[in-house]
Amino acid sequence: MPIYRPAFMIPDIPCRRNTFAGTLPQEIVAAFDLLDRDDRVRVVVLTADPKAPAYCAGADISSGWDSLFTKESLKEGPQAHRDTGGKVSLAIYRCRKITVAAVNGHAVGVGFTGLTIPLDFRFAWEGTKMAAPFVRRGIAPEAASSYLLPRLIGYSRASAIFLSGSTFGPDSPLVQGLFHQILPSREEVFPAALAFAKELAENTSQTSVAWTKHLLWRGADSMEEQHILDSRAIRELGMSEDAAEGARAFKERRSIKFTDTLSQNLTSWIPWWREVDINYRKAKL
Amino acid sequence: MPIYRPAFMIPDIPCRRNTFAGTLPQEIVAAFDLLDRDDRVRVVVLTADPKAPAYCAGADISSGWDSLFTKESLKEGPQAHRDTGGKVSLAIYRCRKITVAAVNGHAVGVGFTGLTIPLDFRFAWEGTKMAAPFVRRGIAPEAASSYLLPRLIGYSRASAIFLSGSTFGPDSPLVQGLFHQILPSREEVFPAALAFAKELAENTSQTSVAWTKHLLWRGADSMEEQHILDSRAIRELGMSEDAAEGARAFKERRSIKFTDTLSQNLTSWIPWWREVDINYRKAKL
Amino acid sequence: MPIYRPAFMIPDIPCRRNTFAGTLPQEIVAAFDLLDRDDRVRVVVLTADPKAPAYCAGADISSGWDSLFTKESLKEGPQAHRDTGGKVSLAIYRCRKITVAAVNGHAVGVGFTGLTIPLDFRFAWEGTKMAAPFVRRGIAPEAASSYLLPRLIGYSRASAIFLSGSTFGPDSPLVQGLFHQILPSREEVFPAALAFAKELAENTSQTSVAWTKHLLWRGADSMEEQHILDSRAIRELGMSEDAAEGARAFKERRSIKFTDTLSQNLTSWIPWWREVDINYRKAKL
Repeated sequence: MPIYRPAFMIPDIPCRRNTFAGTLPQEIVAAFDLLDRDDRVRVVVLTADPKAPAYCAGADISSGWDSLFTKESLKEGPQAHRDTGGKVSLAIYRCRKITVAAVNGHAVGVGFTGLTIPLDFRFAWEGTKMAAPFVRRGIAPEAASSYLLPRLIGYSRASAIFLSGSTFGPDSPLVQGLFHQILPSREEVFPAALAFAKELAENTSQTSVAWTKHLLWRGADSMEEQHILDSRAIRELGMSEDAAEGARAFKERRSIKFTDTLSQNLTSWIPWWREVDINYRKAKL
Repeated sequence: MPIYRPAFMIPDIPCRRNTFAGTLPQEIVAAFDLLDRDDRVRVVVLTADPKAPAYCAGADISSGWDSLFTKESLKEGPQAHRDTGGKVSLAIYRCRKITVAAVNGHAVGVGFTGLTIPLDFRFAWEGTKMAAPFVRRGIAPEAASSYLLPRLIGYSRASAIFLSGSTFGPDSPLVQGLFHQILPSREEVFPAALAFAKELAENTSQTSVAWTKHLLWRGADSMEEQHILDSRAIRELGMSEDAAEGARAFKERRSIKFTDTLSQNLTSWIPWWREVDINYRKAKL
Repeated sequence: MPIYRPAFMIPDIPCRRNTFAGTLPQEIVAAFDLLDRDDRVRVVVLTADPKAPAYCAGADISSGWDSLFTKESLKEGPQAHRDTGGKVSLAIYRCRKITVAAVNGHAVGVGFTGLTIPLDFRFAWEGTKMAAPFVRRGIAPEAASSYLLPRLIGYSRASAIFLSGSTFGPDSPLVQGLFHQILPSREEVFPAALAFAKELAENTSQTSVAWTKHLLWRGADSMEEQHILDSRAIRELGMSEDAAEGARAFKERRSIKFTDTLSQNLTSWIPWWREVDINYRKAKL
């Protein structure tokens, strides 16, 4: 049975400049959890309506920061709070499919930290205004961006972005290497990302992609240990149907048809890393 | 009471091409310790006299390397030595304020490793000659630069800088991303850095800056653990007066007045990391 | 006695587009082990015949992936396999001399991951086609490249290279900072690399180079611990003959003659790190 491979678009919420509010965060978390599990999905594209005022204008702080906190977490004490932006970026980070951000409008605050940097590929409109202006608002960088950004583009640039809180575009030296493609108009961003996604959906192995993402982000602390890890990866994947198809298609110089799926063909050896429980243990259940 | 926010300039010692000698290292350590603690200080600018022969020409090795070692450390054995450049770069690294290097002259050896790379932002004269020529002198990279430089700009460039020991300018591909601004004349470097520093001193929260630097450099080893860390940061800062002022000023579209200080408003949860004792335990006290 | 300092060239195997097959991997491992130990060697250059169809066209998968596995490792179970590309990249990575890749032809798969990125400096022909197309073959990135590449050029670029599996040249934004020099013709690559290597062989200290590589790649997890490490390096090297010669030559403004060697003058304190055993413990001996 041929498998349909949709690229996915999160429905945007154009009200209030696409602020990160209401049910938007939970919807994105739920969507990426689902897209991670649905074997029919190979590549995910996240975008907004190109006519919306922004890709995502960040948190709505028009009435202060109280909306960040739930009554329950406040009652439980300072350890109980879990940042909403972080829930979103973790859901994206944990998605084992290829993820693509089509940033077709301004991306400020969590619009940058939570909805731009955690995806594997970033396409952007050249006029996009971006900022991580936390030091100018009396708050901290969130969405685990202080983990991701220095690893993505180095501590020199990441530190300059966070400590200046300045506004920059996708072609700024500050984010060199962060964007895969920069488009001249807002309308061109999603089609370019979608064409890129479709080509990858047709020609990449779902299991290979998952192993590759895990080796990159859940890898070892030394060359030697990584050698042991990727030897295991080669051993597990090398005997798979997708690898056999990869070799055959290469030899026969024909287009490829990968059929292995995460639910059926990902070995039980994953995860090999210690999974960290991010839930707070409540005082009373 | 309005708080005066000076940008700070270390008095340079123009003798001997600003070599890293005499009391200069101890003075810089003492200055950064003080600047870290003084609540009136928000941004620190380190520079030299633009008419001096160099920003810092490195250690004075005209009579060999003996001056590196104290008699006491030699007597205590090979574990007792503590590198002077490292004491300086650690003092700068530990400073919880924004730090800016105004590199208005040549920066060689520890002038590069100890007085340029450990600061948060680097401004430089385009004619600056820089080098980390340790392999060409029979010595090792110092000032913890083998930790900092690969993280700042990646191992490919850092390794090329250290293993070639070559001389380069701030616009060299070898240091792409390391310098925030490059100026055409020596005289323009400090004024540009100072204007940048003043804008940041006016518009950034002291507590936000400290949390941001800690999250970046004292962060966790995984996305999940960083999510727990920055959730705590959001919880602590989100209820602060600076955050409230940040939201109010944003809503009212007016300039901001942050008043929280490190001595009064930094929560007792910092440091959350294990502090490493760098002192040597002497055989006899 | 003046020491002859050869730059070394691995004999290439031009058959089958320089595929990574037959005895080539073992020969490279053996060569780098030897070059690491031979005190006469200061810099190693790895290259191919510029008339060969490729620098290295990757593994030969014309008859599937079975050739990856030995019968013995298959019998021992999934933990027993050790990736051949990883053995090569580890041998290069562990070599304590300066290593230079003269990539004078296409470098695909392990030609990129195993024979290009693990060397300290990379020279390339501007027409070189490179790719890490594992996700397009149903297999995983190998040769510990998922450890090395993100550290060399950041996770953003490394992830884009592995997850797209696309073909790129040495001047692509995807590998910015990875290549030390890019040459217009295949024939110019090796001479340029050799001239660079000879200059370094004449003017760098063998012990300094080894310490520098170890500090970079076997360093500590914090600034404080790195300060303790490099203080020890300064202490050990600072009293060496090479350091004395370094200071004398600098003072006398003459060319330098380093004489310390790894076998005679590297202190017993190396290695300071925990060495990881990468061999598989066989069920029966």
